[in-house]
Amino acid sequence: MDKVRQQLALSLLPGVKAKSWRQLARWSPAFLLAESDAVLADAGVPKGFLASRQGLDWPQVDSILAWLQQSGSQLCFLDDEQYPPLLAQSPWPPVRLFLKGQPQWLLRPQLAVVGSRKPSPAGKAAMSLLEPVIDAGVVLTSGLALGIDGLAHQAALSRGVGTVAVLASGLQSCYPKRHQGLFDAIAQQGVLVSEMPPDTAPLPALFPQRNRIIAGLSLATLVVEASLKSGSLITARLAADAGRDVLAIPGTPFNPQAAGCLQLIKDGAALVSEPDDIGFVLKSWLFEPINKKVVLQGLPEHPVLDNVGDDTTPLDLIVERSQLAVEVVLSYLLELEMQGYVCRVPGGYVRQRRQSHV
Amino acid sequence: MDKVRQQLALSLLPGVKAKSWRQLARWSPAFLLAESDAVLADAGVPKGFLASRQGLDWPQVDSILAWLQQSGSQLCFLDDEQYPPLLAQSPWPPVRLFLKGQPQWLLRPQLAVVGSRKPSPAGKAAMSLLEPVIDAGVVLTSGLALGIDGLAHQAALSRGVGTVAVLASGLQSCYPKRHQGLFDAIAQQGVLVSEMPPDTAPLPALFPQRNRIIAGLSLATLVVEASLKSGSLITARLAADAGRDVLAIPGTPFNPQAAGCLQLIKDGAALVSEPDDIGFVLKSWLFEPINKKVVLQGLPEHPVLDNVGDDTTPLDLIVERSQLAVEVVLSYLLELEMQGYVCRVPGGYVRQRRQSHV
Repeated sequence: MDKVRQQLALSLLPGVKAKSWRQLARWSPAFLLAESDAVLADAGVPKGFLASRQGLDWPQVDSILAWLQQSGSQLCFLDDEQYPPLLAQSPWPPVRLFLKGQPQWLLRPQLAVVGSRKPSPAGKAAMSLLEPVIDAGVVLTSGLALGIDGLAHQAALSRGVGTVAVLASGLQSCYPKRHQGLFDAIAQQGVLVSEMPPDTAPLPALFPQRNRIIAGLSLATLVVEASLKSGSLITARLAADAGRDVLAIPGTPFNPQAAGCLQLIKDGAALVSEPDDIGFVLKSWLFEPINKKVVLQGLPEHPVLDNVGDDTTPLDLIVERSQLAVEVVLSYLLELEMQGYVCRVPGGYVRQRRQSHV
Repeated sequence: MDKVRQQLALSLLPGVKAKSWRQLARWSPAFLLAESDAVLADAGVPKGFLASRQGLDWPQVDSILAWLQQSGSQLCFLDDEQYPPLLAQSPWPPVRLFLKGQPQWLLRPQLAVVGSRKPSPAGKAAMSLLEPVIDAGVVLTSGLALGIDGLAHQAALSRGVGTVAVLASGLQSCYPKRHQGLFDAIAQQGVLVSEMPPDTAPLPALFPQRNRIIAGLSLATLVVEASLKSGSLITARLAADAGRDVLAIPGTPFNPQAAGCLQLIKDGAALVSEPDDIGFVLKSWLFEPINKKVVLQGLPEHPVLDNVGDDTTPLDLIVERSQLAVEVVLSYLLELEMQGYVCRVPGGYVRQRRQSHV
């Protein structure tokens, strides 16, 4: 627990972002926190950190730890094994995530589903396109907002699976209040995610930051219905910036709530009018088409699976053996894990022996 | 009139299509009709024509000529000066066109507007996107059918300009009957077009043939609203086959009348949600953006205009001087004619002197 306490303290320092977090990883948290400025400077620790270290707030750290214990929530850091790999691969991963519920949903292939807080009847109806996608094993990730966000979470829960809800505020209370029931249900059946300390209020500036997490966690981002001023377009842009696919459901030119989606399609987003359109975009990540039950009889040859052993195989070794880029390997591993062919274990991956599943 | 009578007779022979018409153009109609099979064979006239010539039907020819005179209609052949150049450039130009009304509309830049016979309220509303396009000088071309076709023609007429209506049946009577008023108005203010003899009934097989004329006349084809089985998709495919742009107005995935448009957009058609989207596609053909009044102060340099003289300049010479492909030159000339910079005259084009227009 001491290491977690130290990591949390480090992560809360002003100016500690993913880049500096990765730079500081060569030194132990204990060393970075306990030694004098002179010793740190001598060891080559950047001067910026020495200044930043003045902001250490141990009472805040301990109050967060107490809340974690009392609420049964979890905390993970950028370099942890359980940190969502696609988010880590994104241009702007948070250095820490607070998690409430079942974090394993974060390790599955996710589709971000975002849209208007006040969808039209057409936007609400379009949510039905997601049912076969959910049934195919894709996890829906959204922002717990009113409207499309909430409908996406509910669609997943009502089909008996989890969902990932990323909050702009801390996890200590629910925003918007009207979604308290949904918040509680996701804490049971899915997972709530926030990078902010648990008592953080939902300040407007935090919403675009929240959106980058939604986009970063997901293989692709689907905008269901959005006006030209919708925050969903920010999420879509962030997804594109992260090299992820953007999808949009069209509407008539006379529905202002569809204007953002039409603009995205003009700019190159994939037009979605049936579930297979989503399957087409995700097809490189999934073995079988959406709408068909997955029946696999083993994989005769696989560029990544063939390089995962029966003992723990570190990610680095799988990357080296497969001679593929790390993000490609990670995506294959996610897929293989979802299909039950490999299992994530401390220190790497282990091959699972299995014949078929339905 | 004798030459027209002979050309009409030739054009009505079974198997005489654009290709054979162009092959036969080296001989005079009088020669082709009057000489013996032996003389024609000796001159190298294809054997197929000799067989086809057995089908000559002079009573039909004369009854058509009588109708033309009595109804004030016109007739033009593929190699005539007044034959619409873009249609002549298409893969399948009709060898003859019957024209009722004001044929000059056929020489202007046209946008084909097609769609459902039973449009939804969204489809009807989408027609308003065409008003600035009409005002920018683009002629709407359609098929006089119920629904979108009729709305497009009416939109043009109600803004005081002509429109091109291409019929599957002959021009002697109006089909559908419900559009008799529109038929009469277009005969006054626009132009009715058919390749079929005037008494031809609206047989189902003629509609796809009619669609190829609509697509061939037009710079681009806009599908306003269409189901997956709509004939409008045939027109769109024909337009694409002719190398013309296809545009479509989107709708929600739950409007079956929008499904054809959504499919077209997935297949690469331009999404139209505002008038400028049409202007963008037509921009290579028009000097000024849609929605803005045209105010030109003369064209300092122009690759085609500079090669049109104050005396009649034949098309061939303009092509040779400009060193551009004939279809590019034709499109520039259409544009220049619409802007009033050149005038089409027997044997070629003449430059017009003018300073500006609003």
